[in-house]
Amino acid sequence: MEPSKKTPPGKFVEVPITVRFGDTDPYGVVYFVSYFRYCHHGIEEFFRHLGLPPQGLFRNQEEGFGLPIAGASCDFYKPIWYGESLKLAVSILQAKDKALTFGFHFFHAERGDLVAHGQATIVAIGADWRSRTLPDRLRYALEPYLPLT
Amino acid sequence: MEPSKKTPPGKFVEVPITVRFGDTDPYGVVYFVSYFRYCHHGIEEFFRHLGLPPQGLFRNQEEGFGLPIAGASCDFYKPIWYGESLKLAVSILQAKDKALTFGFHFFHAERGDLVAHGQATIVAIGADWRSRTLPDRLRYALEPYLPLT
Amino acid sequence: MEPSKKTPPGKFVEVPITVRFGDTDPYGVVYFVSYFRYCHHGIEEFFRHLGLPPQGLFRNQEEGFGLPIAGASCDFYKPIWYGESLKLAVSILQAKDKALTFGFHFFHAERGDLVAHGQATIVAIGADWRSRTLPDRLRYALEPYLPLT
Amino acid sequence: MEPSKKTPPGKFVEVPITVRFGDTDPYGVVYFVSYFRYCHHGIEEFFRHLGLPPQGLFRNQEEGFGLPIAGASCDFYKPIWYGESLKLAVSILQAKDKALTFGFHFFHAERGDLVAHGQATIVAIGADWRSRTLPDRLRYALEPYLPLT
Repeated sequence: MEPSKKTPPGKFVEVPITVRFGDTDPYGVVYFVSYFRYCHHGIEEFFRHLGLPPQGLFRNQEEGFGLPIAGASCDFYKPIWYGESLKLAVSILQAKDKALTFGFHFFHAERGDLVAHGQATIVAIGADWRSRTLPDRLRYALEPYLPLT
Repeated sequence: MEPSKKTPPGKFVEVPITVRFGDTDPYGVVYFVSYFRYCHHGIEEFFRHLGLPPQGLFRNQEEGFGLPIAGASCDFYKPIWYGESLKLAVSILQAKDKALTFGFHFFHAERGDLVAHGQATIVAIGADWRSRTLPDRLRYALEPYLPLT
Repeated sequence: MEPSKKTPPGKFVEVPITVRFGDTDPYGVVYFVSYFRYCHHGIEEFFRHLGLPPQGLFRNQEEGFGLPIAGASCDFYKPIWYGESLKLAVSILQAKDKALTFGFHFFHAERGDLVAHGQATIVAIGADWRSRTLPDRLRYALEPYLPLT
Repeated sequence: MEPSKKTPPGKFVEVPITVRFGDTDPYGVVYFVSYFRYCHHGIEEFFRHLGLPPQGLFRNQEEGFGLPIAGASCDFYKPIWYGESLKLAVSILQAKDKALTFGFHFFHAERGDLVAHGQATIVAIGADWRSRTLPDRLRYALEPYLPLT
């Protein structure tokens, strides 16, 4: 694991994750699919933290844009059991004109070690589903969270 | 349990249910919430069996109606484990002018015993979310499945 | 709707519910299945509020008991959209020797009106899956929340 | 997109995917998280096709192994709506002594075009959660599906 993977790059928003009864596999370990749900919760809370209600960002008919997810990945280092809690650090890994890549660091809430690490890219599209630049109000709000280059 | 609960009343549509990896609780038993998802799968397959694609029924903007679920309940008699399969019998318990109640009998696919029993009521609404009569094409298609009265 | 349905009977635990991106149906309205997940979150938070970690209650091998859900129902009065929030009041509707019935009142977080109302019954079982009395430590902790009779 | 991404490498198992009512985002498009569930369904069906019941593979206490998912990723090329169906081709991208990487090609069931493409790696662990070689019976069964090298 490269150093960049072990800690969020720069500023991040921390989101507490409680493992719920329906989040595990039949053996009591958090199902890998649940982490991708947690990632989306993380994006929602990140936007909310920026003062941008997520329901006006993922799709906005008046402003004529949408922000679908174009790709996502996650690596799972340690099993997490029902009854355990996580801290999710949501950061911006890369911001391009038309796309934004989030980083997700999942830490065990008590032990503090990294248990999973993922990323997801959202792209900006217009009403015609063609790619366009990210909405200005999103770009401005993101600035304090952009990674140093 | 009354007799009516042990078997579907009259004609029914049988839907095979494979318990999936994410459907259980942390102890490997099917999570009660999953049964309600199975019930909705059952309604979708029931409509499909009637020749009515479900995506044109739950909401239909051209014809100006929607069929939201107004209530649902389920009783759970026996635990089902990951690796087991179910047979779901979907029937009509009651058809009113403006509402339709489905019955769901979940049988163990191999043993054949009843493991859960539920029902769900959908109501017809117009574009204004006010109640209206069920669409005619649904009422006609349902006729062979109506319970004897 | 009877009066008892409009407000929780006596003492309750309030749980905030944020509607998540994956919780809706294809038309943006909270999927009825999601309410049952919220009900289980409610039970988990109720137990936590009582000082009883839920992971030691739903199944406890050392103490030799489990608390599976034997039945659940919910009625849905108004549509809730992605971007809206709910307040869930979790109360005890009935406590018997071997079973416990929870009540769930879902209120719109801002408007305050009741949007859905449900209940779920958990039963106590032993290691042999036969019914037994509720664990004493649960009964004691519940006392302040028991309905007046 | 490299050629290898557009079609499954060599032999594959085809799994039909019906988009369910709870699988979409609030705008009616399949939620990216649902694809990861479909990937796991694909692995389950792949194992079943090989004559290996999945419930005896993801964890097997008698034989002393488990096969957790160590990483997964997926790219999403086109939106899929409620009412559409997919064909999922599940193939083996790489088989190592202690790990197995599956490829997932999602095609639109009617149009036939590639709408999403993912992969997931499972690793073999012993009862102590340390890595070990894949069980022999899995390795033998996989042979017809191994990619040419």
